[in-house]
Amino acid sequence: QGTRDLPPAQAALRDRLLSAVVSCFKRHGAAAIDTPVLELRETLIGKYGEGTKLIYELQDQGGELLALRYDLTVPFARYLAMNKITNIKRYHIAKVYRRDNPAMTRGRYREFYQCDFDIAGQYDPMIPDAECLKIVHEILSDLQLGDFVIKVNDRRILNGVFAVCGVPESKFIPACITVDKLDKMPWEEVRSEMVGEKGLSPEAADRIGDYVQLHGGLDLIERLLQDPKLSQNKLAKEGLGDMKLLFEYLTLFGITGKISFDLSLARGLDYYTGVIFEAVLLQQENEPGEEPVSVGSVAGGGRYDGLVGMFDPKGRKVPCVGVSIGIERIFSILEQRLEASGKKLRTTETQVLVATPQKHLLAARLKLISELWDAGIKAEMLYKKDPKLLKQLQYCEDTGIPLAAIVGEQELADGVVKLRDVATRKEVRI
Amino acid sequence: QGTRDLPPAQAALRDRLLSAVVSCFKRHGAAAIDTPVLELRETLIGKYGEGTKLIYELQDQGGELLALRYDLTVPFARYLAMNKITNIKRYHIAKVYRRDNPAMTRGRYREFYQCDFDIAGQYDPMIPDAECLKIVHEILSDLQLGDFVIKVNDRRILNGVFAVCGVPESKFIPACITVDKLDKMPWEEVRSEMVGEKGLSPEAADRIGDYVQLHGGLDLIERLLQDPKLSQNKLAKEGLGDMKLLFEYLTLFGITGKISFDLSLARGLDYYTGVIFEAVLLQQENEPGEEPVSVGSVAGGGRYDGLVGMFDPKGRKVPCVGVSIGIERIFSILEQRLEASGKKLRTTETQVLVATPQKHLLAARLKLISELWDAGIKAEMLYKKDPKLLKQLQYCEDTGIPLAAIVGEQELADGVVKLRDVATRKEVRI
Repeated sequence: QGTRDLPPAQAALRDRLLSAVVSCFKRHGAAAIDTPVLELRETLIGKYGEGTKLIYELQDQGGELLALRYDLTVPFARYLAMNKITNIKRYHIAKVYRRDNPAMTRGRYREFYQCDFDIAGQYDPMIPDAECLKIVHEILSDLQLGDFVIKVNDRRILNGVFAVCGVPESKFIPACITVDKLDKMPWEEVRSEMVGEKGLSPEAADRIGDYVQLHGGLDLIERLLQDPKLSQNKLAKEGLGDMKLLFEYLTLFGITGKISFDLSLARGLDYYTGVIFEAVLLQQENEPGEEPVSVGSVAGGGRYDGLVGMFDPKGRKVPCVGVSIGIERIFSILEQRLEASGKKLRTTETQVLVATPQKHLLAARLKLISELWDAGIKAEMLYKKDPKLLKQLQYCEDTGIPLAAIVGEQELADGVVKLRDVATRKEVRI
Repeated sequence: QGTRDLPPAQAALRDRLLSAVVSCFKRHGAAAIDTPVLELRETLIGKYGEGTKLIYELQDQGGELLALRYDLTVPFARYLAMNKITNIKRYHIAKVYRRDNPAMTRGRYREFYQCDFDIAGQYDPMIPDAECLKIVHEILSDLQLGDFVIKVNDRRILNGVFAVCGVPESKFIPACITVDKLDKMPWEEVRSEMVGEKGLSPEAADRIGDYVQLHGGLDLIERLLQDPKLSQNKLAKEGLGDMKLLFEYLTLFGITGKISFDLSLARGLDYYTGVIFEAVLLQQENEPGEEPVSVGSVAGGGRYDGLVGMFDPKGRKVPCVGVSIGIERIFSILEQRLEASGKKLRTTETQVLVATPQKHLLAARLKLISELWDAGIKAEMLYKKDPKLLKQLQYCEDTGIPLAAIVGEQELADGVVKLRDVATRKEVRI
């Protein structure tokens, strides 16, 4: 349940998608690493907030207690701490596992790919953070998924908001989780969850509401820096200062047109400590004048400066910022689009079919195809002793093989091969 | 235990290795598929003989009982049966899991890659089987691993041997498993295991010994086809006839020089029904006149005509033959070789570092690098506001970046960039 087989057509589409993502990561100088699918259970427990209950655990068959990785970020942090690596720029594309309720048509699975790019190291503020946003912008533009917006916020700003609204620190994370639902439910519902389930006072909830419904750009950052309450909060001030710097860098990158500083963005994971962001695709067919409607998150990430320290015996921190591309949702969009277009993706790369027009020529085919393979040419033949020529040409048309190399009795006698262009039916003897 | 992280240098080496294997599979017209790491426990149980006890099982957390895949062949057969696919040529490169005793220096892990190529479908005999051997020959030659031999046998011939030596049919598989150890222990030990543990009669064991110590080529096949006892056994006769055909095809492929028909080859898995094969590397530094010593299996496979039928409700069979490349062992050989050479593999593909020689030029770097990324150029910069030029050039040398694009105050004023070849220190203004 919640997993799937990928048949050749889908596997070919996914390979294309993944290689677009990999080439962006490589363009930004990232190295690949790999970590096991299996992690010690204790490595994963307590890192994902409410997500912890979705971790797949292995049966105790003697030896270590194991679990399947839930994301690639925690294993990355574990890897850095174990190997005392203090700076690296890496990407990792691999499957992760969550015992969630699957929603397969929307691209939500229990086994799914994550495509992560992270920068670890102590650097000047917001330079790596800005690069992560540039990467999201490049990938979503390259893939031509339509209009999108990248929402940006900072955990420090959110915490500052909660503090100045009178929320006790112990309730910051529950409040965060509830605020994060503002993209899926109206403020009234979010407010009642805060008051009801999370036990905030109605006054605190109303004050939070005034902040978290704001979104904008540099102008909003400037306004909040002047906000009489927020500007008195140390964390919020730091966060807003960095947000301003981030927007300066994004202006130099020329991408602020797609960036929205959005105070409702909270993201569910416990480990974020600074900037957080999430890219959403916007509905295409809205009426003029209407606000574009979001159709779901396709990338997300943020800064997590404390996670590596949790795995280091001396608690030594390695600041990190990273982005994860939501490849499964993008895949299901591209899949639907391909289906709607009626186009068929080739599932193989075969350049030539080795064919014979008469019987008793299997030996000639085997000799020729072997020469082609040895010359690095992608070649196939039918696995029949005496296939009909029509069947062989039909196979080319069905699978998109552009050329047929035909050896008949005449060609053998003349020491030539007849090369046929399958689409035009033109033939040359070579 | 038995798993490992792959740091950038190793990940880069593995990527190279895997792409050599993939390009061979694509040269032979295979399409990619993917299946989940998780399978239903019942899918895996009873397919691997003694291997079954090495399967990783997941904890029962409610819902289906799951296990981690043990190989890619059983999931492939399950996929064919579920989707009623009767012919396909596919490759699959993915991790599999076995709770075995790890021997990491020899490339034996609990989580490891398999690289499988399989041909499913009802075809004329031995044509797909011969292609599988050609693929092993191509990959081992391409990778320049040194001398190798591909041992070939047929389960039908082995069963025929057991039958004519007086072994009861119920003991064919145990006898098979013991015979398979002949590459690691002398005949005397194998014989005593047969008689002691497996309960064969000493006479039967001796008769088996006369056969399974034979190896050769077409001449041996011809001799056994004339063998008074074997030629009376239907299965053995079929197997020997097909083996003869296989050698004809391999002669046309020009690869019989590396093929040995070896009656001791048995292979451990239950599901093989016909041809089986295994490639072993030969020790390089043996004295002239000595027999070359095998240093371990690097590829293996065979025909399994009954496996798909086990997953079909009506038992419909789909004949299959396939090969699995032992990428982990090959990887550890290449790794040791790279280490011995003292060479360093680049872990990134960055073409140019964007650098500045003076302070206060971060904005210029951010603008230039953004233009480069947008033009598809692989570019990096240091994440510092004001890095020293020497540090920037040092970074190029450390990571193998060939070019530095330098913007200083003069270049900004002149509207140019200074492009520096890091190795030769030559500079041009562009």
